Amino acid sequence: MRGHRRQRCELSQTDSGSDSEESDTETMRCISCKEVYGRCDAGTCKECYEEASETEDELKREIEDLKAKVAFLRFCSPFDHHVSPPSSAIRSPPAPGFTDVVLVAASDAASIDSLLPVPAHKAVLVSRSPVFKAMLENEMEESRSGTIKITDVSYDALRAFVNYLYTAEACLDEQMAYDLLVLAEKYQVKHLKAHCEKFLVSKLNWDNSIMSYAFAHQHNAKHVLEASLSLITDNMDKLTKKEEYMELVEKDPRLVVEIYEAYLSRQVNTAAPKDSSTKP
Amino acid sequence: MRGHRRQRCELSQTDSGSDSEESDTETMRCISCKEVYGRCDAGTCKECYEEASETEDELKREIEDLKAKVAFLRFCSPFDHHVSPPSSAIRSPPAPGFTDVVLVAASDAASIDSLLPVPAHKAVLVSRSPVFKAMLENEMEESRSGTIKITDVSYDALRAFVNYLYTAEACLDEQMAYDLLVLAEKYQVKHLKAHCEKFLVSKLNWDNSIMSYAFAHQHNAKHVLEASLSLITDNMDKLTKKEEYMELVEKDPRLVVEIYEAYLSRQVNTAAPKDSSTKP
Repeated sequence: MRGHRRQRCELSQTDSGSDSEESDTETMRCISCKEVYGRCDAGTCKECYEEASETEDELKREIEDLKAKVAFLRFCSPFDHHVSPPSSAIRSPPAPGFTDVVLVAASDAASIDSLLPVPAHKAVLVSRSPVFKAMLENEMEESRSGTIKITDVSYDALRAFVNYLYTAEACLDEQMAYDLLVLAEKYQVKHLKAHCEKFLVSKLNWDNSIMSYAFAHQHNAKHVLEASLSLITDNMDKLTKKEEYMELVEKDPRLVVEIYEAYLSRQVNTAAPKDSSTKP
Repeated sequence: MRGHRRQRCELSQTDSGSDSEESDTETMRCISCKEVYGRCDAGTCKECYEEASETEDELKREIEDLKAKVAFLRFCSPFDHHVSPPSSAIRSPPAPGFTDVVLVAASDAASIDSLLPVPAHKAVLVSRSPVFKAMLENEMEESRSGTIKITDVSYDALRAFVNYLYTAEACLDEQMAYDLLVLAEKYQVKHLKAHCEKFLVSKLNWDNSIMSYAFAHQHNAKHVLEASLSLITDNMDKLTKKEEYMELVEKDPRLVVEIYEAYLSRQVNTAAPKDSSTKP
């Protein structure tokens, strides 16, 4: 592929004549943005440009292939059967979708929501979560009864959770990301956890930093923890004035200690070269 | 993003001095391959090079994300349960994997193979194939009996077919690609059909061109059909000497006519400009 094929110059000589005044700065025209550039702004030669374009095309083709694969592997959500109107008059009874288990949001407050079961396939749950796998393959209570009770979760979050197990898709806002991350951690659905963490890191700001930090600590969300801790230690001067800070000192002072330890460790690391020079 | 930031030139002036003899050809050094290039080999400026690199990095990240999604959505194949040794002593009976249907390769010759059932989940079959969907959701014989008989297929091909429905993966050789394409066409599994067609097109050569052409015709494989027809019409001088050609004339002369029609149409199209000039 490499090895310079010297192509015939497409630029006319009159073109170079007009640039004669700045001939010592040596200008060329960029094949991409069409602007003239000088020696110090040189990017690539034509051959490397073409190779890079080919690589980009190959990557785009790979993306298309992977997207098609995702579309193929996405599972029909069991909700599709309930939501969509019957597509054919022949199919008179609503299609059951062959579900063989239901999940129930068993919150303490017995709202109407908590009575709505979320249908699912054991095979899908087992395929996505090692916790469901252990639960359903080992003849535990849930396997026998065909009902999995999940506490401390809303019906909406549970439904979004099950939907993610089928489709790898979730429509997130911050609350939903928190709820789904808790479920993902509990049932060891790593892909969903990473998805929620990514979303929460993107939504991180000074206002929600301490809350995010405490949440990340509680639910073992390492990326959120790192990002929030970094944001907090960047703004130590404002920290003690925050209401959430006072609350955290009251509620979980150990976490506050960890903030100070991280801050201290950063300071020591920054000062390290000076420190070592003072030692004998 | 655009708009030239003129960076300080990193090349020393002594460098340009050594090139003074060819100052009218104007040379630069490629940031990628490090070779010197002239005006006619100019690719991009530095800024466009950096933008292209960023794009490439973004595409690569997208590919990583999609690969993780595919890995998440890939379904446990029902064979995994049968092949792998029991992972835990507690789980004494082999895990059923909650399969609720079996597929059987019901070939005419009652070999031992044809007796081996391939277990599967109705939900997976329904999710991947509109034909299985109609069959299983409409209380047809197969749904009631829990057994789907598939004729004219080997056990290995059937197993590979079911495995693809779970994983979007198949280990292909030419024979397997032919077998799976037939099943993919029959059960309308487009993703698998495209996969097989791509493989068969990549394996196309003069020796298998007529066989591929006839096969593609029979099973509605458009990409294989186009590619094989193009290969055949590129080599019309050798065509009539081929044994497969004689066989096709015997067996299905209509297909041979289509080869000649395609060849003629190609000739007419190539000659079109001359043709039109002779008309009044």
